[in-house]
Amino acid sequence: MVVSTWEESVTNSINTVYLLFSAYLVFIMQLGFAMLCAGSVRAKNAMNILLTNVVDAAVGSISYYLFGFAFAFGVSSDSNPFIGSHFFALKDIPNDTYDYSFFLYQWAFAIAVAGITSGSIAERTQFSAYLVFSFFLTGFVYPIVAHWVWSSSGWLSASSSVQLLFGSGAIDFAGSGVVHLVGGVAGLWGAFVEGPRVGRFDAFGKPVRMRGHNATLVVLGTFLLWFGWFGFNPGSFNKILVPYVNTTNQGNWTGIARTAVTTTLAGSTAGVVTLFSRRLLIGHWDPMDVCNGVIGGFVAITSGCAVVEPWAAIICGFVAAWVLIGFNILALKLKFDDPLEATQLHGGCGAWGLIFTGLFAKKEFVLQIYNSGQVGVPRPFGLLMGGGWGLIGAQVVAVLVIVGWVSITMGPLFYALHKLKILRISIEEEMAGLDVSSHGGYAYVDHHEEDQPLRYADYAMLKEGSRS
Amino acid sequence: MVVSTWEESVTNSINTVYLLFSAYLVFIMQLGFAMLCAGSVRAKNAMNILLTNVVDAAVGSISYYLFGFAFAFGVSSDSNPFIGSHFFALKDIPNDTYDYSFFLYQWAFAIAVAGITSGSIAERTQFSAYLVFSFFLTGFVYPIVAHWVWSSSGWLSASSSVQLLFGSGAIDFAGSGVVHLVGGVAGLWGAFVEGPRVGRFDAFGKPVRMRGHNATLVVLGTFLLWFGWFGFNPGSFNKILVPYVNTTNQGNWTGIARTAVTTTLAGSTAGVVTLFSRRLLIGHWDPMDVCNGVIGGFVAITSGCAVVEPWAAIICGFVAAWVLIGFNILALKLKFDDPLEATQLHGGCGAWGLIFTGLFAKKEFVLQIYNSGQVGVPRPFGLLMGGGWGLIGAQVVAVLVIVGWVSITMGPLFYALHKLKILRISIEEEMAGLDVSSHGGYAYVDHHEEDQPLRYADYAMLKEGSRS
Amino acid sequence: MVVSTWEESVTNSINTVYLLFSAYLVFIMQLGFAMLCAGSVRAKNAMNILLTNVVDAAVGSISYYLFGFAFAFGVSSDSNPFIGSHFFALKDIPNDTYDYSFFLYQWAFAIAVAGITSGSIAERTQFSAYLVFSFFLTGFVYPIVAHWVWSSSGWLSASSSVQLLFGSGAIDFAGSGVVHLVGGVAGLWGAFVEGPRVGRFDAFGKPVRMRGHNATLVVLGTFLLWFGWFGFNPGSFNKILVPYVNTTNQGNWTGIARTAVTTTLAGSTAGVVTLFSRRLLIGHWDPMDVCNGVIGGFVAITSGCAVVEPWAAIICGFVAAWVLIGFNILALKLKFDDPLEATQLHGGCGAWGLIFTGLFAKKEFVLQIYNSGQVGVPRPFGLLMGGGWGLIGAQVVAVLVIVGWVSITMGPLFYALHKLKILRISIEEEMAGLDVSSHGGYAYVDHHEEDQPLRYADYAMLKEGSRS
Repeated sequence: MVVSTWEESVTNSINTVYLLFSAYLVFIMQLGFAMLCAGSVRAKNAMNILLTNVVDAAVGSISYYLFGFAFAFGVSSDSNPFIGSHFFALKDIPNDTYDYSFFLYQWAFAIAVAGITSGSIAERTQFSAYLVFSFFLTGFVYPIVAHWVWSSSGWLSASSSVQLLFGSGAIDFAGSGVVHLVGGVAGLWGAFVEGPRVGRFDAFGKPVRMRGHNATLVVLGTFLLWFGWFGFNPGSFNKILVPYVNTTNQGNWTGIARTAVTTTLAGSTAGVVTLFSRRLLIGHWDPMDVCNGVIGGFVAITSGCAVVEPWAAIICGFVAAWVLIGFNILALKLKFDDPLEATQLHGGCGAWGLIFTGLFAKKEFVLQIYNSGQVGVPRPFGLLMGGGWGLIGAQVVAVLVIVGWVSITMGPLFYALHKLKILRISIEEEMAGLDVSSHGGYAYVDHHEEDQPLRYADYAMLKEGSRS
Repeated sequence: MVVSTWEESVTNSINTVYLLFSAYLVFIMQLGFAMLCAGSVRAKNAMNILLTNVVDAAVGSISYYLFGFAFAFGVSSDSNPFIGSHFFALKDIPNDTYDYSFFLYQWAFAIAVAGITSGSIAERTQFSAYLVFSFFLTGFVYPIVAHWVWSSSGWLSASSSVQLLFGSGAIDFAGSGVVHLVGGVAGLWGAFVEGPRVGRFDAFGKPVRMRGHNATLVVLGTFLLWFGWFGFNPGSFNKILVPYVNTTNQGNWTGIARTAVTTTLAGSTAGVVTLFSRRLLIGHWDPMDVCNGVIGGFVAITSGCAVVEPWAAIICGFVAAWVLIGFNILALKLKFDDPLEATQLHGGCGAWGLIFTGLFAKKEFVLQIYNSGQVGVPRPFGLLMGGGWGLIGAQVVAVLVIVGWVSITMGPLFYALHKLKILRISIEEEMAGLDVSSHGGYAYVDHHEEDQPLRYADYAMLKEGSRS
Repeated sequence: MVVSTWEESVTNSINTVYLLFSAYLVFIMQLGFAMLCAGSVRAKNAMNILLTNVVDAAVGSISYYLFGFAFAFGVSSDSNPFIGSHFFALKDIPNDTYDYSFFLYQWAFAIAVAGITSGSIAERTQFSAYLVFSFFLTGFVYPIVAHWVWSSSGWLSASSSVQLLFGSGAIDFAGSGVVHLVGGVAGLWGAFVEGPRVGRFDAFGKPVRMRGHNATLVVLGTFLLWFGWFGFNPGSFNKILVPYVNTTNQGNWTGIARTAVTTTLAGSTAGVVTLFSRRLLIGHWDPMDVCNGVIGGFVAITSGCAVVEPWAAIICGFVAAWVLIGFNILALKLKFDDPLEATQLHGGCGAWGLIFTGLFAKKEFVLQIYNSGQVGVPRPFGLLMGGGWGLIGAQVVAVLVIVGWVSITMGPLFYALHKLKILRISIEEEMAGLDVSSHGGYAYVDHHEEDQPLRYADYAMLKEGSRS
């Protein structure tokens, strides 16, 4: 009778517990995005953005199940470096390479991408246009990039079984590029094609502040994203029961915990730097800035989290804060309106994250994670760590091709939707708010306004009824 | 010196990590219900429903510890198929069968039941009546059903050590019936005996829309429930370190991850179907509908989640959406008022879930989970999968007896409370809102209304004090 | 080639999964505090308290990384019982004693302390003063106490490698004293030095009720804290794969699950007792009271959670409720104003928790956890369990020295800030609210007030633009 050995069973059990609970944490980021987005828009559009976030998860589940996963990870002997072609609708899963747990983990990543972009086009987009772009981005544009960088046959992959780009491949451990830069660039095109919200810039081109309606939701979302990032970054190891060679008592468990630490330090540093920088720039202590700063730090460290020392994570976060501040100033100058700063934050800090990894990746960690610790085979690592130009070169290529790929797919899509007049809502709708025009009413009814007066007849009838 | 072997220690450690963290996820569903319920009622009753959800957890902990767990799982050699009779107040725990972790996991389930029902009777129930019904439901009515279906001596159990009903027993893996149908039927009787809220139907019997006060809370609750369901369904395996026979590299870890996938697909499908169906029916895209749709899909898949293929989960969710829509139309026709749609959702989709399992349960999975993979012993499985009438028969019996048992216990209880005039609040209280009449004030104080003017004397005194 | 053995790899993997996910749960308590605090203050100060909670996490990460961890756990052969002196900025981590996972777990504890204290000084403190006290408390005052009680060379430690105080050492398993009493006493001094909020007591000294602005947030925070406490208390075992001697199938996994049960029962009992007691005292059912009661029960059980029977946890919670009620009455009499009741709750119930452990700790559990189950070596345990005066003596000493240490450090700090006039905001600012004066505006903008009228010129221009 065939049965797994004790060692196989233990290994599979531990790794599955680890990967599934990490996937659950990544999933909760969807709630984090929903709350962050809701709090950052005006009350009259809250229903709309809440719905887009729920729909990202629901529609994304179906499209990623049917073909997204196949495009990203459908690798077999006949696979190619550009797109996967197996495992549509989970056919032949589980197999020796993938169990359902891997699918679930990747699903949670996929639904996050559209969530990022939804922020950029918030408060002015037709819901049916949203459905189209979300389906296309989650089901096709994103999985292709994931295939390039993360699958074993991807041309940009750092762990490919075939020739590595520049002998190195691009290291995007948990997706500063694959997830955040993709989402940010998609948002860039969406926000650019749609143009600014009504009233965002006055007749003289001066920006008018449009405050989100609920700061508590922004903080709620930020903490949930932080919580979820512990699944996003450390979880990307996929397996925990992997000992490292040439050490004792070290293995993926060490790398995983270190990744949680680098993630925390990068986000915290970026938050603190933003707090003081913005205090100097605008004169008050703004919680919204700090929240965005923290998230910017997380986005940036996501690429290199597993291969850098904790001290380097602090540098990563420090620069990320300034990248975000700088891009935000630039956006205002260019009259670019992204209600969630998603382009600047996920795009800008995502690109910085890829570059950062090319500068600071440590030899020992790169070998442990991408070379099974085989120290005999030399490979490039961080430029500033003495690792040569191979890795940083691959990282720059990754930035360029991701920006290019998303631009040539999402740019035309948004433009086509615009030309078909199904992208942006009318000015009248925008001024009334999407919730009233498309979603059946406001998200909130307070205790002053909730009860329409009952007619006396109703009251008498009910009073009668209650006596029976 | 006696001590666990290495294998025992590893097995216990992995399984306990798995079960405890699953229990924590199930617990967070209590928060999900609280937020969903709060957002779905009017602002003037928010305090009330928040309190009932906190009290469900607190009171439920005590009653389930004292006797609920004993009624459900108190099995020993002298045990009977109808009610358990050991382990009151955790006496003799831990033992060879149960450790504390199993109790904690079951506790998290138990407190969920009353949370479901509290939605049905929201906005018009006296708090003391709430305490009575919650204690009775969590401590007695629910544990009995759990004993029938889940304990090793239950007469409906699919893994009983004695004779199985129709050679099969009912498969309610994580509780579409035991938890959701029980909660939904209890809610049906509560809402029926209490009657509709004041103003819910006008003098001509036409329904008047009563909108919840905060859509953000509804979405927050829905995502938290989704998150928690990853503990509810996959967690119901209880142990992860169990290899399957006749396979390699497969075991409960495979089944658990597949269960997370089926759960996700059913909920997502139901959400998408609801989105488009309701768009056609009511003319706008309504986030509240989608949230209820997603939850309906989860409720339905909860019974069969572990024994069906992912493609079947999509069928499950598709039908669940229509079950919910249909029951909601029916409820309006019958002038039945359940503020959270809990009867329709947990009752209707819960019943559909049991039937669905009888139709689509796959032989291989049923054998792995309920027969320790012993392929030599034939047993019924899904009717449409060629498994005969045994399982679907047992499922139908399960639906009927659960509806019957809850009706003959909760129906009379609600009727008695009604006759004693301690069930429903007065019309005056209902129009003012429960928060003002019973809970010391509104849940919300906004920045316009918060400061009562200070008298000058106060101000002068304080000013004086601040100089010292 | 050196590599971990199979047994080492399995042990490290399981323990790391366990400790990391526990750390993530403890981290989410920071969100719980943020929501609880925000809901409990007036709307005009919501931004301020949200920011302090985010900043606690961000600034705390940096200070705990740089030196807090070193002060607490920087133990080596030359270490002393009062303060640690190694591992600054994670130098020499990982090593044979500590991996990164242990740092992350302790980091999550450290950032919680300032969160407790921030409640006591809410609604009237300058933000820059907040930064000073938070940095000092998280980076110095708290780590010293952690060193005394939890490090292997601490003079109060119950598992020290050197001489134990009274042959016992103080048992503060998860930190009723180290975390909650420290935070509470710091809050006591802060609230005392600052004095009550403007208008909290009228000209005749009668208290004026100042309601928090959002009860939903209070319940959200409470449930998140409950969720997080499953990481705080059971997680404090640090390792799960540790079998107990003289038993079969028992080990840390048993103790961990029992700890989750005792935690749940203590919090639930305290909540129920508070519900009914407050009903009798104030005449209505108040959700806010119940939430505080539940948290008080958790604070109290945190010290003894691992070494008492479930039935004792019920006693713990019962008394905790009355401790909280009593201290609240006392605070009103003394005109002491702590907006979150943090002093009474974390201070009062924290102290009770230490005493409770001295009374009810069970011999068997103390030996399993603090003596590796060596039954040959007698050691004190709970006084009422027949364990003599050694443990209760050490517990009383712990209460006294914690109160003393925090008083002589934080008292002077707050007084100095007061004298430098950088502690409290002006009365004018306080009446307007911190959000307007220091944080750029209110946290909330509702749909009535959000749109400033656009000038016709803007509208025409935009209309024009949309035609292009």
